[in-house]
Amino acid sequence: MLQTDPRALPLLPLIYMAWADGSLAPTEAALIRDAAQALDADPAALDRWLDPQAPPTTADLHALAEALARRAEDAAAGDLVALGLALAPDANDALAEKVQTLADALGLDAPDAVSDLVSVDARGADFGRMQPASLDPAPITAWLERHRPADRAAVRALLADEAFTHRADLRIDEKRAQTLDWLKRVADAGIGRQGYRETDPEGALTRFVAAFETLAEFDVGLTVKAGVQFGLFAGSVRALGTEKHRGVLRDAVDMKLPGCFAMTERGHGSNVRALETTATYDAERDVFVVQTPDDFARKEWIGNAARDGRIATVFAQLVVGGVSRGVHALLVPLRDDAGQLLPGIRIADCGPKMGLDGVDNGQIWFDGVTVPRDNLLDRFAQVHPDGTYHSDIASDGKRFFTMLGTLVGGRVSVAGAAVSVSRVALATATRYAVRRRQFGGKGGQEWQILDYPSHQRRLIPRIAATYAISFAQDALARDWEALDAGGEDDAASRELEARAAALKSMATWHATDVIQECREACGGQGYAAHNRFAALKADSDIFTTFEGDNTVLMQLVARALLTEFTRQFADSRVFGLVRHFAGRMVDAVFDRNPFVTARTDAEHLRDPAWHAELLAARQADLTHSLGMRLQKRLARMPAFEAFAEVQNHALNLADAYAERRVLDAFQRAFEAFEGPDAQRAVLDRLVRLHGLYAIEKGRAWFLENGYLDGGKARAVCSEVDTLCAELRPDARTLVDAFAVPEKCLGPIARS
Amino acid sequence: MLQTDPRALPLLPLIYMAWADGSLAPTEAALIRDAAQALDADPAALDRWLDPQAPPTTADLHALAEALARRAEDAAAGDLVALGLALAPDANDALAEKVQTLADALGLDAPDAVSDLVSVDARGADFGRMQPASLDPAPITAWLERHRPADRAAVRALLADEAFTHRADLRIDEKRAQTLDWLKRVADAGIGRQGYRETDPEGALTRFVAAFETLAEFDVGLTVKAGVQFGLFAGSVRALGTEKHRGVLRDAVDMKLPGCFAMTERGHGSNVRALETTATYDAERDVFVVQTPDDFARKEWIGNAARDGRIATVFAQLVVGGVSRGVHALLVPLRDDAGQLLPGIRIADCGPKMGLDGVDNGQIWFDGVTVPRDNLLDRFAQVHPDGTYHSDIASDGKRFFTMLGTLVGGRVSVAGAAVSVSRVALATATRYAVRRRQFGGKGGQEWQILDYPSHQRRLIPRIAATYAISFAQDALARDWEALDAGGEDDAASRELEARAAALKSMATWHATDVIQECREACGGQGYAAHNRFAALKADSDIFTTFEGDNTVLMQLVARALLTEFTRQFADSRVFGLVRHFAGRMVDAVFDRNPFVTARTDAEHLRDPAWHAELLAARQADLTHSLGMRLQKRLARMPAFEAFAEVQNHALNLADAYAERRVLDAFQRAFEAFEGPDAQRAVLDRLVRLHGLYAIEKGRAWFLENGYLDGGKARAVCSEVDTLCAELRPDARTLVDAFAVPEKCLGPIARS
Repeated sequence: MLQTDPRALPLLPLIYMAWADGSLAPTEAALIRDAAQALDADPAALDRWLDPQAPPTTADLHALAEALARRAEDAAAGDLVALGLALAPDANDALAEKVQTLADALGLDAPDAVSDLVSVDARGADFGRMQPASLDPAPITAWLERHRPADRAAVRALLADEAFTHRADLRIDEKRAQTLDWLKRVADAGIGRQGYRETDPEGALTRFVAAFETLAEFDVGLTVKAGVQFGLFAGSVRALGTEKHRGVLRDAVDMKLPGCFAMTERGHGSNVRALETTATYDAERDVFVVQTPDDFARKEWIGNAARDGRIATVFAQLVVGGVSRGVHALLVPLRDDAGQLLPGIRIADCGPKMGLDGVDNGQIWFDGVTVPRDNLLDRFAQVHPDGTYHSDIASDGKRFFTMLGTLVGGRVSVAGAAVSVSRVALATATRYAVRRRQFGGKGGQEWQILDYPSHQRRLIPRIAATYAISFAQDALARDWEALDAGGEDDAASRELEARAAALKSMATWHATDVIQECREACGGQGYAAHNRFAALKADSDIFTTFEGDNTVLMQLVARALLTEFTRQFADSRVFGLVRHFAGRMVDAVFDRNPFVTARTDAEHLRDPAWHAELLAARQADLTHSLGMRLQKRLARMPAFEAFAEVQNHALNLADAYAERRVLDAFQRAFEAFEGPDAQRAVLDRLVRLHGLYAIEKGRAWFLENGYLDGGKARAVCSEVDTLCAELRPDARTLVDAFAVPEKCLGPIARS
Repeated sequence: MLQTDPRALPLLPLIYMAWADGSLAPTEAALIRDAAQALDADPAALDRWLDPQAPPTTADLHALAEALARRAEDAAAGDLVALGLALAPDANDALAEKVQTLADALGLDAPDAVSDLVSVDARGADFGRMQPASLDPAPITAWLERHRPADRAAVRALLADEAFTHRADLRIDEKRAQTLDWLKRVADAGIGRQGYRETDPEGALTRFVAAFETLAEFDVGLTVKAGVQFGLFAGSVRALGTEKHRGVLRDAVDMKLPGCFAMTERGHGSNVRALETTATYDAERDVFVVQTPDDFARKEWIGNAARDGRIATVFAQLVVGGVSRGVHALLVPLRDDAGQLLPGIRIADCGPKMGLDGVDNGQIWFDGVTVPRDNLLDRFAQVHPDGTYHSDIASDGKRFFTMLGTLVGGRVSVAGAAVSVSRVALATATRYAVRRRQFGGKGGQEWQILDYPSHQRRLIPRIAATYAISFAQDALARDWEALDAGGEDDAASRELEARAAALKSMATWHATDVIQECREACGGQGYAAHNRFAALKADSDIFTTFEGDNTVLMQLVARALLTEFTRQFADSRVFGLVRHFAGRMVDAVFDRNPFVTARTDAEHLRDPAWHAELLAARQADLTHSLGMRLQKRLARMPAFEAFAEVQNHALNLADAYAERRVLDAFQRAFEAFEGPDAQRAVLDRLVRLHGLYAIEKGRAWFLENGYLDGGKARAVCSEVDTLCAELRPDARTLVDAFAVPEKCLGPIARS
């Protein structure tokens, strides 16, 4: 291990120590080369130890340490320089001086320096002024909101009204009344109508989404109630009903008819197909009889049910002529105009919740409730007066999934609201972090807490991810609108459903994580209710569960990706797979560009194309290995069990897919940024940080599967630190660009 | 790549596919060997492909895939068998049959199987009966509570009283009154007194901790108020005061004198040394004058201040004879017996918080408040009537840290409460998971949700970690008590302070994570307030911030470890380091037992000694590299900046230390388990799961640093899955053993 030019030997202890923290700066390498030259050593003798981009392996360093340790035992107690000289064939004073010079230059000779760190003194307290934004955030806001800016502005103008003011410590009944009043004001401003072309000539789904996202900055309870009314209830009438239901739709979007979306049952949240409520056609009376067969089938968690709802879209097993036709939806009135429950309807309040006090969730039981035949939402299936059932969609399964496709709107909306609450949390915590000071070097002013690398890591990658998810969400909403306008396209529908499921899960888990991290980053101030983390957390916590439980949704995503996988190789699956795998992995990553895995320089680590390539390779690799695992199991066990056995793998795949789609959306959106160069430069860093951070988060997998080696993985982490530090001066600009109105932020975040 | 016995060539496509999911079962390897034999191939020809414990590298598999893909292009479209035959030197029907047999046996010939998975049907809903515990949990409870079981039982008996009943939707003032009433009942039961030998002949710190932990199962607000009164207030009087303060101490533990612990200021939460409140000795009047110099120095978040506190331990800069002596504590009365504020005292309510409605946090300003000289808590420093200051501890810094040592009790208590809320959350979610059913194979009953591997991963490793932290907490509390009884031991005090800081951070972050995961695992039911996650979350969220912000505490831990590091090598630091590093890394991990890194069999992966060795090596390695990084920086920049630059590394070290200590405590405690073999077998698995899961969580670092390779890391993940599945039948037993009273659990968790 010590075989090198003997004249270079005295430098080895210093080289070892220089590498001991896992990295060698180019300046350090240059100092060592200079010293080698001063010792007349062969310049090539130290090459293997001095390339910052090709670090010695862990094993190499271990071996060197071992060799040095053996010599050290022979030598008298001393320092690195003494050890180096002990290795030299001919030590003398001149040599000692040269080695000492290098030790000094490398900072490896500071006696007792580490022990000085035991106590840190600090003086001077300053809660301080908030650091101003480094750049004008307006061009960035314009880019973030380049679609539907007018609708966002209109909602912000509405929210500026004093009626929209949070009051602390309202009781639940008061909070519900306040939320209902707010929702009526929102409807009066035309925001419900604007969501659909059927109710507004300029109506568009993305207009509703934009309004929904903006409302969420102010109050998630109001947002959820608006979602129940305009999204789930009105949306189900629009998507599943026909011309004859247009009156209900119009009254719904104007809040003249408060309604519910009664799908979930106590026994069945996620497994909608197994719902037990029945709607039986009685041909004699020409009515459907709606029945809750037992307590497990009561409708559960139904928004608007406990207090305000007059009518509900009810999902039930349709029975016609004694034949069960699967889950269908029909309109069932709940209360009369005076708010009294109608015969056969029983409703109970779900009681206090973690949050969303403004939303009146209830349980509903139906006992022999009759509704006219026309109340069936009959776009995809009709029942004729003679008791015959008809559907253009022959397969029960396909019809079920077509109807469930209407849930995609709820998922798009919730993903958007999750992005909004993430923005509010990050704007608050980041503004606090550029005002609050704590600790600092001796004698000087205390540091702003965002100056600490650990605080940068808490906030800045999350700012980047929030931008990234914003753009993925924007693309999703626009594709949803286009698909809705364009009519039937099965493949595109399935792709959109999978993407909505993935993005809803990712955005809502992200929001939960962001709120928690930001709350902690604001310390005790984060715990004060007026700083809004309490409400953000309590109200949005259910996002990961409703509109589809995230874990269940992510399994649907994995299934969809497998479907694509089997379709792609339907003709010759096995040959295709081999070719596919070999082609992708070997060509793209290893053979075509062997340099890819070895480079650890900043240019490469920050390369968006490399980020995209790696995330795409991970998705393809996980799809392939999941397919293979299933294939091996399906010969031995039923499909359901086989899928359960590979469930954790499936969830990893769905995650990988979501990460890739989000990065892709962010990178594409950045290409369309048209603002000034200064802002462009900041955003360029932000995009690169997001890509590199995704790799860092997933580095265990990349290491396991040979896409990264240890040295490169460490370089990735170190470059993430550097990018965070580079973005730190612009952090305030980046959160100001979210344009969250001041009234939606807590006092610690206000200018 | 295809160089092997030509007779084995037809098997290569099948071997590739068998490996394609990253693992090969021993049964699969055996099938392939049998087939090779049937083909008369050299048995050794396939050795490199068939050792499940030494998988081919990713590069090997890529190369094989590439070679196969090249042949595949020449071959006609077909399947794996056809490709194998195309590789054979002499294909014939007999050969085809043998290869086909292997393909069938391996399950690699199931046509279209994967595509069957697109939709899953399920029937039959059953909220279901809760699965009973598999084993008697009592022996496990006895082990968990082997210290101070009587105190836990006494608190549970007290809590059984109807007065201790949660009422939904109380307003804040009502909740505060209820909590004060509860606290008086707790004091009346003697629980405050029992904490100290000064107030109860049988008094002991661990008796207080046991009571505190048990109260936390019922109500965190009550627990925090008890902590403020008996722990922080009474504890500070006891630890910092002298004989003359014993009357105050006795009144404090009996709740005759509700008190506060007024340390934190608005401008200074974490940086206590920089507090700005002053206490100036006025020799003429023989009093201290307490002053809040400006609004940044107001006392903030002080528990008991807004409503109930009569007196406070106030931390202030002591000024005697014009000389500032640093932060000291003194008793300052706040209110008279009628509850009226005393002259010079101003108190404001901190207002609504995320949770802890029952705790009356306030802000306090002092304006020329005078208190007698005897109100100085004068154990470590005294002021004489003539205006002279005396302390046996010469150094201001050392005196400060000695006084701050009294904070350790608060950290021990909070860690304990964090374990308690984790237990409540896990008991609830696990019981729900063995009752709730959702989805299932065709025709059969739906599965219990704990039967899904993803659900097992959510709960079971967290159950293991909660056990582990329980035992680390138990050891910490007992060591604290011993140290408190044993008098002065600087090194032991520092060790305990670091351990308390690490464990407080780990336990409270764990609680936050556990509550979130359990809430989500209960879906909508988790969001209902009566199932308690709302309160657990809202009330405990501040745990990560108060009694020391976790991120700040973890940096103190890292500093303490570095101190140890420099002390250990004080004589000959550099030589020592080299020897230390080389000795540990090379000998322990690589040279002494080269088998260690290669083995992937279950026996090895589950070996507690290996788990301990790996976590110890990580801590030593991170300590070493952190020391080195600092060493390199300290020559170039001030210590504070140098430490800031390596802050993220320091946090990793503190994490690694906490993980190691917790695993160590769990393994030691298990050695002392004396219950029946059946329970022992379950706990043995649980200890192994905890160790292996710690490695899995940290596998990115272990991979980066050469302690694991990719194949072994995958094997670790897979073995964690297996252990979770093995523990699944006993999950209910394990959470029942927490012995959380039914009244402390939500309805979904009750039998």
